Amino acid sequence: MESLKNKILTEGVVREGNILKVDKFLNHQMDIKFFNEIGKEFKERFKDHKIDKILTIEASGIAIAGIAAQYFDYVPVVFAKKTDSLNIDSELYTSKVHSFTKKKDYTVMASKNFIKKGENILIIDDFLANGCAALGLIDIIKQGEANVVGVGIVIEKGFQPGRKVLEEKDIKVESLAIIEKMDAGKIYFK
Amino acid sequence: MESLKNKILTEGVVREGNILKVDKFLNHQMDIKFFNEIGKEFKERFKDHKIDKILTIEASGIAIAGIAAQYFDYVPVVFAKKTDSLNIDSELYTSKVHSFTKKKDYTVMASKNFIKKGENILIIDDFLANGCAALGLIDIIKQGEANVVGVGIVIEKGFQPGRKVLEEKDIKVESLAIIEKMDAGKIYFK
Repeated sequence: MESLKNKILTEGVVREGNILKVDKFLNHQMDIKFFNEIGKEFKERFKDHKIDKILTIEASGIAIAGIAAQYFDYVPVVFAKKTDSLNIDSELYTSKVHSFTKKKDYTVMASKNFIKKGENILIIDDFLANGCAALGLIDIIKQGEANVVGVGIVIEKGFQPGRKVLEEKDIKVESLAIIEKMDAGKIYFK
Repeated sequence: MESLKNKILTEGVVREGNILKVDKFLNHQMDIKFFNEIGKEFKERFKDHKIDKILTIEASGIAIAGIAAQYFDYVPVVFAKKTDSLNIDSELYTSKVHSFTKKKDYTVMASKNFIKKGENILIIDDFLANGCAALGLIDIIKQGEANVVGVGIVIEKGFQPGRKVLEEKDIKVESLAIIEKMDAGKIYFK
């Protein structure tokens, strides 16, 4: 998605340790007009699939998924919640996820009321790096005996193994921008 | 907002301890078509005000604010982040907030890059109870020498002191549904 690549180049900031900050438009301050472009593009990428629901994870996936739903006939959007403790509420599906960024494990959870058997669920998130968050969401969907249609990602870090991990599980991955490498503050797209 | 009251009555669940669960449409599973109605109504309530930015707080305020922004000429939306630790990053405005629900203090924070002097900022959130989260956001806005236009709330617990606390600070509060009391599982609106 060319407009996204341009936005990353003009508004993104590469910090020490090759960390990409896109908090000016994506995950702290949010450009909702641009989110509509993102939503349209996700629809285009998944237009041949039946989608009953969108699943995302708090916090930065929420608005992206919410705006995208407008292009998927306003299907319900569920956001999985994160917690440090393993909540053993019998009404919840839970999955343990490792965060490389925060160097700790956390639990993602979603109510059993909102992941139903046979539903076709599209996962949407802002970043794909190691794929841990996506794997947690896939685990939750499978616990609910629903179907994973695919994973829609705004920015993929192509130099990290997330895509490989998901594709090995036969999950369709659509990323709107794939960063091949960052070097000396410069961003190279795939 | 009659459609909201109806939705609360039909899809909300009152749990023991008079806790209102609206996770079927508002803060876990989200009805994005209905969020558009909410956004339109916020615009109606604040139509006489100049709004440069919307500020909300993770996680359940994010999609509501994001969809609402579509009715405020796509102004930028910033979501304040919550953390357990007081982050003393000099690039952040922070404020300490007490959560009665979780019975603990936490810190809300927003980047200084996204709260600018003189900006007219509308706060949007899903619930108003004791007003603690709203006070934290107001504190952040004032640290940035920006103006608080008002606070737009989806559901106000009218039996808790949030409105009083905010109005004493001359803050305009607009709630789309105000619950006067919950009694024996029944919801009474103001």
